[in-house]
Amino acid sequence: MNRTSRIAPLSPSGTSWMATHVNFMGNQRPRVMDSHDIRALLRQQAAAARRARQAGFDIVYVYAGMGYLPYEFLLPEWNRRADAYGGSVANRVRIVRELLEVTHEAVQGKCAVALRISLEELRARPGETAPSEAHEVVGLLKDLPDLWDVKLDSSPTDCPPSRFAPEGSHEPVIDFVKQLTHKPVVGVGRFTSPDTMVSQVRRGVLDLIGAARPSIADPFLPEKIAAGREADIRECIGCNICISSWHDSVPVRCTQNPTIGEEWRRGWHPERIAPAASAASVLIVGGGPAGLECALSLGRRGYQVSLAEAADDIGGRLRFETRLPGLSAWGRVLDWRRGQLEHLSNVAIYRGNRLSADEVVELGNTHVVIATGARWAKLLYSPLEIPAGSLAAPGVLTPDDLAAGAPVTDPVVVYDFDNYYLGGVLAEHLARGGHSLHYVTPAGHASAWTIMSNEQPQVHRALFSAGVALHTLSRVTAYGDGVVTLANQFTNAETQLECRSLVIVGARFANDALHTELAARSAELDAAGIRSVTRIGDALAPGAIVHAVYSGHRYAQELDADPATLTFRRDAPLARPA
Amino acid sequence: MNRTSRIAPLSPSGTSWMATHVNFMGNQRPRVMDSHDIRALLRQQAAAARRARQAGFDIVYVYAGMGYLPYEFLLPEWNRRADAYGGSVANRVRIVRELLEVTHEAVQGKCAVALRISLEELRARPGETAPSEAHEVVGLLKDLPDLWDVKLDSSPTDCPPSRFAPEGSHEPVIDFVKQLTHKPVVGVGRFTSPDTMVSQVRRGVLDLIGAARPSIADPFLPEKIAAGREADIRECIGCNICISSWHDSVPVRCTQNPTIGEEWRRGWHPERIAPAASAASVLIVGGGPAGLECALSLGRRGYQVSLAEAADDIGGRLRFETRLPGLSAWGRVLDWRRGQLEHLSNVAIYRGNRLSADEVVELGNTHVVIATGARWAKLLYSPLEIPAGSLAAPGVLTPDDLAAGAPVTDPVVVYDFDNYYLGGVLAEHLARGGHSLHYVTPAGHASAWTIMSNEQPQVHRALFSAGVALHTLSRVTAYGDGVVTLANQFTNAETQLECRSLVIVGARFANDALHTELAARSAELDAAGIRSVTRIGDALAPGAIVHAVYSGHRYAQELDADPATLTFRRDAPLARPA
Repeated sequence: MNRTSRIAPLSPSGTSWMATHVNFMGNQRPRVMDSHDIRALLRQQAAAARRARQAGFDIVYVYAGMGYLPYEFLLPEWNRRADAYGGSVANRVRIVRELLEVTHEAVQGKCAVALRISLEELRARPGETAPSEAHEVVGLLKDLPDLWDVKLDSSPTDCPPSRFAPEGSHEPVIDFVKQLTHKPVVGVGRFTSPDTMVSQVRRGVLDLIGAARPSIADPFLPEKIAAGREADIRECIGCNICISSWHDSVPVRCTQNPTIGEEWRRGWHPERIAPAASAASVLIVGGGPAGLECALSLGRRGYQVSLAEAADDIGGRLRFETRLPGLSAWGRVLDWRRGQLEHLSNVAIYRGNRLSADEVVELGNTHVVIATGARWAKLLYSPLEIPAGSLAAPGVLTPDDLAAGAPVTDPVVVYDFDNYYLGGVLAEHLARGGHSLHYVTPAGHASAWTIMSNEQPQVHRALFSAGVALHTLSRVTAYGDGVVTLANQFTNAETQLECRSLVIVGARFANDALHTELAARSAELDAAGIRSVTRIGDALAPGAIVHAVYSGHRYAQELDADPATLTFRRDAPLARPA
Repeated sequence: MNRTSRIAPLSPSGTSWMATHVNFMGNQRPRVMDSHDIRALLRQQAAAARRARQAGFDIVYVYAGMGYLPYEFLLPEWNRRADAYGGSVANRVRIVRELLEVTHEAVQGKCAVALRISLEELRARPGETAPSEAHEVVGLLKDLPDLWDVKLDSSPTDCPPSRFAPEGSHEPVIDFVKQLTHKPVVGVGRFTSPDTMVSQVRRGVLDLIGAARPSIADPFLPEKIAAGREADIRECIGCNICISSWHDSVPVRCTQNPTIGEEWRRGWHPERIAPAASAASVLIVGGGPAGLECALSLGRRGYQVSLAEAADDIGGRLRFETRLPGLSAWGRVLDWRRGQLEHLSNVAIYRGNRLSADEVVELGNTHVVIATGARWAKLLYSPLEIPAGSLAAPGVLTPDDLAAGAPVTDPVVVYDFDNYYLGGVLAEHLARGGHSLHYVTPAGHASAWTIMSNEQPQVHRALFSAGVALHTLSRVTAYGDGVVTLANQFTNAETQLECRSLVIVGARFANDALHTELAARSAELDAAGIRSVTRIGDALAPGAIVHAVYSGHRYAQELDADPATLTFRRDAPLARPA
């Protein structure tokens, strides 16, 4: 009688928060589930649970979180049913109860049955018999799950960046659950500090600590806590690059842990690295994220490493960026490496040392690594739109100028076609500092790429609360005499804004002058015994901090390696059994 | 001396037109290629060409189109080199010449070497020695490629939807190529009519016709032309759903040809279908895209089919939508099926027949298919934001009301959270009809999903040229007394617009009343010999036309099929040779 395709309770449109950007489902809509659909769902859950049991799993989940089908039954904005599954809280929770029951029945006590549930929206809704509907839902299900796995509702709040939420940020939403059930409760919330974890357990908020992002940053987190090696924990910085990898369907990456996702592909281990395969010495020029990771990993291998940093301290771009709103936790990239390097007597760091090509040749190390970073360019979205010279006008600034303390004059226009975090952060920073701010971007959103890192809604709110005026779908096409001209990205219709300081956050170019100079002196390099000069990080190809750390680590992994081992392994699934 | 990762000529930012939305590369930037990189590129091209030759290919391409690396050398906005590969046209084309030369050398006359090149931007740039730089580039390479494959530069112009470009739209850009080379020239441009193809060949524009989208719509296009069966050609409608599949990394779909991508997975053939496996008769209620495709494919199988359409003619939503700006070619979905159905004496179509449940039971067909479509809802983005009743106010309209001829009063607000084509098309239609128009959407762009179908830039231009005022990142939260209230999608900051007609293009609900009524009368159905009642198309789950056609076709393919054959096959790669 019935054919099913994608089914869902009555939901008027693409329901995910991403639907505001692009309806990823090619416009096909859900329909109201009828009683056949509901029975089919319960049958399918039971069959899946039986397969999981047969496959040897210990825990089988019912998932009522983050927009998944059972979650949509819980909230009246999506669930507008008039039958036994809609209306009252008892009705809206019915499908979750039935899913738990059929799962219990299917696994016959051989597996624990866990419930993962989002409670943020329900907690915000006053209940009839309890402080909130979240209390009512948990009270109705009580001890039915063997494990309560409690969380928030949408990616930007459930899995927020450190820029907009502290660790343990779920507590105000989920703190009541243990009071209503005898079963253990697990939760997440980017726990990075053992103190916070212990505190939540001691105070009866959670029984078990869930930590996905912190375990990506440091898979040995529990062992280091157990061994009292807190200082060695490579703490998650909450940048959400890991999540962006997931949104982008690419292998996971982590700013702190360059080995993640490469354990099998490249044979990299988060704690162990092969010993040096030669007595080579390595000179690293530049102590930003790439140079530091490279020095640390080469040092661990046992190479003699000298790191020369032109500035008066190491850190590179981190030294400025971690002073910007919400980015202080990113300083862990520097702090952890600085701490670890202190234990390595074979790595020498020379601050305030800007090396010339002559000096590099004189030092005569076996290998030279150029980690001199990149600079932001005074170029527009299309570099032909303004003759190169005219952007040299006073008042045109880059993030590098702001880092160096250049003054800005109101009104300020931040023109962002980088589309990652920095343009939005700088606009927020300057506006909070009292400046009159316009943020201009050719994209449809502020910091458009941060949709990938769960930040974009909060970026918009932060800019709004700081009083920044937003101009999307706009390119800057001319600047002079205190006026910036904007052209609509599609129609080229022009508008103008008063502007005394134009901050361009767009193109970046590698600082590769030293590399270029050395590359032209190969005979001298040979004579000095220098066998290679290699760019890493932004000096190779400007990127995010995650790319710089990865690049530095990869150099260290691959030095003196057999070239045949330098390709990565790929999945080659076995033939299907006949 | 050198390590390469992603490399490119000097290019200041994400260069693709999609970069205005999201920088898909996670913010890692290209760098300037040095001479080592260029030599490596040539080596890699030669090695790839040798492998292609060994693998038995007949043609090996050099690809200098659409943002690919050699293309970026051709244009001074990306190529700002000061060496032998930048500056003059002869220098900018050098890398393409060298790639062709190493490819020729590598294949040693065993394969033809083709050049695919984008000429739109070059043609717009006056040359020093010829009418345009495109003439200069082609003149410099002349007979070096064995085949010229010429095209436009960016997806929205190279591969435009029928809404914004006629077939053969490349001609004004590529018409000169044959005058400068003795080698054959192939080109594309959504050729759907044999007359256009013949005309271009006869007039010396092209030697060979390239047709990707038309071959997706009808893989037997060349054979049908050769056999003089023009009326049987399932012509591409230019909706670009195929391209959206590619952008979305999902199996290809086609509004006209539901079998595409299912040849192996489900064993569907674009021209052949299994004969009827029973003497069943089928009643189809509704003659829109789903019902028509279902009737046609069931008819081809040999079933006795009755199709009852409530309106005075078949076509469903197509009857209104094909009258809107740019959508007339979509009428081919109806026209082709209408023409094919005329040859099937076992399919009877009853127009002006709105069947009741009683009548369906009385008719007593073996199977009943409900293809009654969907309706647009008077609901906002979050259905809790306005009590359901208040949108019943006069002046609130849906696309269905406009299709029925409801009058609109200025100023008009089109509120689009559907995000596919219809909201934008209706706004354009009403504005061109002289109405004062505001287009409001929670997304960052107008018709946000059309980024997937290569339409979005042109949608923005069309709305602008029609005088539509654009309000992005905005939800409608209240309406009354001639005023609509907008809230910023992220900050909820409110603004107001004068509005006498509010057209909501958002949620859709299935017209499933007939199905619900029949489903409740199973005893009567049994007594009448009705073995199944099945929803298809929008009546099952509202979607785009492509989904409706697919749904109707799938029903026809699967009627009376062995249930064991109804899953689709998946790739299971062989084990890698040891």
